[in-house]
Parts: sequence; structure tokens; C-alpha cells
Amino acid sequence: MKVAIPKERRDHERRVAASPDTIKKYKQLGLDVVVETGAGEHASIPDQVFVDAGATIAPDEASALGDADIVLKVQRPLTEAEGGPDELALMKPGAMLVAILQPYQQREQLQAYADAKVNAFAMELMPRITRAQSMDVLSSQANLAGYRAVIDAASEFGRAFPMMMTAAGTVAPARCMIMGVGVAGLQAIATARRLGGVVSATDVRPATKEQVQSLGATFVAVEDDEFKEAQTAAGYAKEMSAGYQEKQRALIAETIKKQDIVITTALIPGRKAPILVTDAMVRSMKPGSVLVDLAVEQGGNVEGSKPGEIVDVGGVKIVGHINVPSRNAVDASMLYSKNLLNFLTPLIDKDKGLTINWDDEIIKGTALTRDGSVVHPNFAAADAAAKS
Amino acid sequence: MKVAIPKERRDHERRVAASPDTIKKYKQLGLDVVVETGAGEHASIPDQVFVDAGATIAPDEASALGDADIVLKVQRPLTEAEGGPDELALMKPGAMLVAILQPYQQREQLQAYADAKVNAFAMELMPRITRAQSMDVLSSQANLAGYRAVIDAASEFGRAFPMMMTAAGTVAPARCMIMGVGVAGLQAIATARRLGGVVSATDVRPATKEQVQSLGATFVAVEDDEFKEAQTAAGYAKEMSAGYQEKQRALIAETIKKQDIVITTALIPGRKAPILVTDAMVRSMKPGSVLVDLAVEQGGNVEGSKPGEIVDVGGVKIVGHINVPSRNAVDASMLYSKNLLNFLTPLIDKDKGLTINWDDEIIKGTALTRDGSVVHPNFAAADAAAKS
Repeated sequence: MKVAIPKERRDHERRVAASPDTIKKYKQLGLDVVVETGAGEHASIPDQVFVDAGATIAPDEASALGDADIVLKVQRPLTEAEGGPDELALMKPGAMLVAILQPYQQREQLQAYADAKVNAFAMELMPRITRAQSMDVLSSQANLAGYRAVIDAASEFGRAFPMMMTAAGTVAPARCMIMGVGVAGLQAIATARRLGGVVSATDVRPATKEQVQSLGATFVAVEDDEFKEAQTAAGYAKEMSAGYQEKQRALIAETIKKQDIVITTALIPGRKAPILVTDAMVRSMKPGSVLVDLAVEQGGNVEGSKPGEIVDVGGVKIVGHINVPSRNAVDASMLYSKNLLNFLTPLIDKDKGLTINWDDEIIKGTALTRDGSVVHPNFAAADAAAKS
Repeated sequence: MKVAIPKERRDHERRVAASPDTIKKYKQLGLDVVVETGAGEHASIPDQVFVDAGATIAPDEASALGDADIVLKVQRPLTEAEGGPDELALMKPGAMLVAILQPYQQREQLQAYADAKVNAFAMELMPRITRAQSMDVLSSQANLAGYRAVIDAASEFGRAFPMMMTAAGTVAPARCMIMGVGVAGLQAIATARRLGGVVSATDVRPATKEQVQSLGATFVAVEDDEFKEAQTAAGYAKEMSAGYQEKQRALIAETIKKQDIVITTALIPGRKAPILVTDAMVRSMKPGSVLVDLAVEQGGNVEGSKPGEIVDVGGVKIVGHINVPSRNAVDASMLYSKNLLNFLTPLIDKDKGLTINWDDEIIKGTALTRDGSVVHPNFAAADAAAKS
């Protein structure tokens, strides 16, 4: 049984779907591992390190994928329309494909997987249950994105983060606000605090207040009676009244004005990101301030942000780097590879090889296609409806 | 009496020699302040902010400098040979010029200052005495360079600095070594520690050991009897024996091999920087490791470093950014401006205007030219010898 790891060919993608550690584990599970030459180049893993871990190096993608039973990728396969190679066409019928497949954004690809008889698993659809935590690629990558957002902000910022007492005077600490307190937001708070910034954070979920405060940051929200009631609702946000929303917007606008650094992290799976910072708010900031929009590829949390660009609005920079986890490709690859290993390990039987229990919650949550059909409940029904 | 602050025109220079704070102080001293339009652009200070502080904006450099009694710059004046404008020609005879003038590297310019009858003061020659600490531009700028070196390293590094415990496994902290423990090195140690790195440092001056340890870093040096004796010598390095140097080199080579990040900061005023990291040492590091050479413009501490480039040696990056303090132009300008203010304040008499005591230690240390002659002891004697 053969596992293949091709080189990632999409722009801005520096990660790779295996590490020396995971290759050793696959070997122990009785699998053969083939890595395409150069696959680890941007993640600082030379071919020889993969060989030392037990992999074989394939000279090109066709020979890596040709007879592979399991294909591990970071990003969904390239298509001919995208400039190719048509990576799906290189896989054999019956192969298992595991990657971040973006089924919501790339609906038409699902039928292509089915037609190619490739059983495709979208890692980002992993159910958020305890057993699957170690397989959660959204968390592992968001964690690094949150760290990196602060480093990128510090790079673009013309000042230092920490307070510095020097003979020529005192440098004030940077004031940082983190908007959206998920995995990325929490790591951004922690990193900005480490660097010496004065950090505040906001989120629509009242239950995040305690997490923000436990990291030494200030929680920013209108905490009236309505807010306090919302907080009791098991940590989920409820739709707030128009009056509350207006008060909250005013508070955020007032707070942003005083910030040097704003990092936004609000993503809604499969939907356009919400605008958190309006153009007027951007223009209210001091020249030299920096915003980092981690949602830029999903439409952006900051009005005016552009994917792959640093936009200057009256001296305020809006940073819109693409594929931020990939900017820390070594750690991102290591954790992503580990997520894949944790996902695959229960499916491998040393004697019988790959054994998929199609009724398992984790499989049902991630499997897009099976034996030529789209099977995921979020997509199969819609497809059936479209056909009828 | 008029003080002028022109826009800096050299490549990679983003700083400006005045801030709103220092302009207010100059006004209080009874001076008129003229700032060339756009002078603060790269330091995030719009013209209007200078105006609000009390400055007049000049539409071009000629009108800013034309009748100025004191000219404040960051870098030495541009010459026609360098592509001009000939900034010295724009100054009036008798004007005082205060900047980082690089007299050792630009010997021929000293006579040009004298011929133009400009009294030129080189801020980087400030004597290292208590009274002049607040005027010490080398310290204020080196402090920011040390901070920035770590941010630049973190930007180029494919991993995170801190240890991270995640559901998908633990990310090990970055191992950082700082070579040269002056102002820049100390701030680099502090910043790398803040970010969560495991930090060690080395220096030829045994007295730095305590400073390194007080910042929570490990001091790396062969601590034999010879070293311990050296340590008693008032904190200055003595020339160590060939045997000691050999042992020390071996220890450094052994230590560098295990580092993810190396930052070198060893500068000798007016001389080529010493090579601390050989090509063999660079090649002994893991792919993905990053070296930042803060001495790259003075010949470099790392073999193979190139000014303005990021050199890749077998997957190891050698970062050679030019003018690193300028990469944090806002704070660098603020502190540099404050250094100039502290230098000028004792020279300004509210009634009599600029009053220079040419016998003062600070003036003698920094004045290159006076009334048409080169007067600095380090240069005047050599000039006289050359003429005879």
C-alpha cells in the first residue's frame, strides 16, 4: 500500500503534507511512502531528509501519484483550466485523496473527484469533537497564522512593540487590538503580549471575555444587561438587538482610533467574511498604524484590504498577505502533516491495509466522494436536487 | 535664528532629524524651525503635524536650507558626484551642520565642509561620557537595530519563536544566538527572549557575562583561568592567547551548529567589522536557519553576507538589510531627534542665540570643521601631515 506526497504547485503555497516524523510513522504502519522530488524545499526539508526517514523520492509528479493508494496534499489538485498539470488525472481510480479541498468555494470539483473515482476527504470539514482535535487542520494552521500576523504587523510597523526606556527618552508600547478571538486571535493576543504590546480584543461571543483576560489583554465590548444575558447562553453568540449593535459599533470605532496595530481574524466557514473595520475607521487611525487582515482571502474583515497587497490609506497600512500559515511553512507543514497522520492512523490495519468505516462520524464529516459519487450530506443533497 | 530640517534623500533612509516634540522645544528656545515638505513622510509624520508643532514648511530643499543657521540631518549631505543635489552648496557659510557624517569612511568630505565654511558636527563621534549619554545616536539607533534584527529574523524564519503546545503536537522553541553584546546585542537578546526563543550570547568582553545572564540568556565562552583573569580587567577585553582563541572558536562552531537563529552585532568604529561566522559555520547549520548580519554595511560579521540582500547558502538564509534602524523609522526618528535636541539645547542662549564653547569635551569630540578648517584631532593632524 503506497502513500504519495506530491510537491504543492499553487502560488504562495510553501507547505508540504508530510514530515520526516510522519513518514517514519507511516512506515511503521506498513505503508510505502513516495515523495516527489523537491516537495519539501520551501519547508526546509531536503529530499535526503525524507529518504533518511524511509521515503522513496519520485522524479516527477506522475510517477509519485501513478499507483498511489493514498495521496496527501495541502491544497486541492490543480486543474487543466488553472494551468495544470491536471493532478486529478494523475491519480488512479480508487485512490484516497486527503487535503484542504475547499468544497464550498469549489463546488464543481466535487463531481470531478467522483468522476475520477477518487475518494476525496476535506480535512477542513473535520467535526469539532474531542476525538478529532488532533486532526483539526483549521486549528493547527490558524494558530500559526495568529502568530505570524503579529510578526507581519511588527515588520510593517515603523515603531517597536515594547516600551523601551532609553537615555534619549521612552518609547511607548504599541497599542494592539485583536478582533475575533478564535484560535488565531488567541495566539495573536499571546504573541502581541509577548512582544510587549498593550493588547485589547473583541469578539461577538461573550464567553471569550475570560480567555482574553486570562492572556493579560483587555476585553472590549458594551457590557450591558443584554450582553450579560447573552453570556449565559452556553458561550454562543445570539443575535443582538439593533440598539446593542449600534452601541458596540460606536465603542469599537472609538477604540480603533487609538490603536497602532489591529489584527482581524473573523472567518465564517463557507461564507464571505464580515466587515469589522470600515474605511472610516481605517482613516481615523494615526499615520503609521498597521492593520493585518487574516480574512483577506475570504473577502476581508477590513474595508479596502486586497489579497497579496499592502494597501496604504493615508499613511495607514492594510496588510493582506495570502496564505499566512504558509509564511511559517516549516512549523505549518509539521503540524499539518501530524493532523493527517492522526486522521489516517485509525484507518490503517497492518494486515488488511486501508479500512474505512464509512459510518464513523469523522469519515462522514470529511468524505466528499465515495466510489464515484458525491456522498457528503452538505453537498450530495444539493447535487441530487440540481439533477432532478 | 533658524533651524532647518531637509528631507533625507539617500537610498534606504526613512528617518528625519526632527519630531513634533523636538520642534516644540526648539520653538521654546526661541528658534524658528523650517521643515522641507515631505521630510517626515517615511517616518509617518505628515507636514501638518510639524506645522501644528510650530514649524514652517518649505516647498523645496533650497528654500529650507538657504538661510538656515543650523541644519539638522540624519545622513551626510549628498554630493553632486553621488547624483546630487549638492546639499552642501545649498547651505550658507557659517551654518552649523549636525548629522551622522561618517568621517572615517568619507574623509574627503571633511575638506568640502571646511571649504564651504560649514561647521560640521559628527554625532557618532559623541564622547561616551555620562553627560553625553542622552546625545548618543549610536546607542539610540543600535537599540532599535537590535530589536529589528529579531523581527527580521522572525520574518524570514519558517518556524515560530515560542514553544507551542498544540493538539497536533509541540512546536519547539527557536534556538537563538546573539554574537556581540553591546547595545544592539542586549536588545536583541531581550527581544528574542520576549518572543519565546531559547537564547545564548557571546562576546569577547568577559564583563558582558553578567548582563547576558541578567536577561535570562546563556553566556557562551570558554571560561578557563585565562578568561577569568581577563574578566577582572575592568570589563575590557585583553588580547587572548592563540590557544584560548582556538578553543573559543571551536566552542562557537559547535554552538552555532545547533542554532536556528544567529544575530551578529560586532562593529569597530571606523574599521572593517570582524568575521565571526565563517562559511563553514554557516554550512553547518540546519536548512531553514536564519542569520542576521547587523554589520553587513561595514564588511559583515558573517562570511558571504551581502548589503541589501538575503543570501541563501544551502537553505540557510543570511539576511543583510541596509540601514536597519531606518526600518523602524518612526521610533528611530523620535530618538535621533531627541539626541540632537539634547546636544543643541546647551548651545542655545535665548538672547545671544547659538553659542558654541569650542573647548567643551562634547564639542571637541564631535566638531569636524570650524571657520573653514578641519579641526577634529583625529583628522586635522592627518590632513596637516598629508599637506606637508
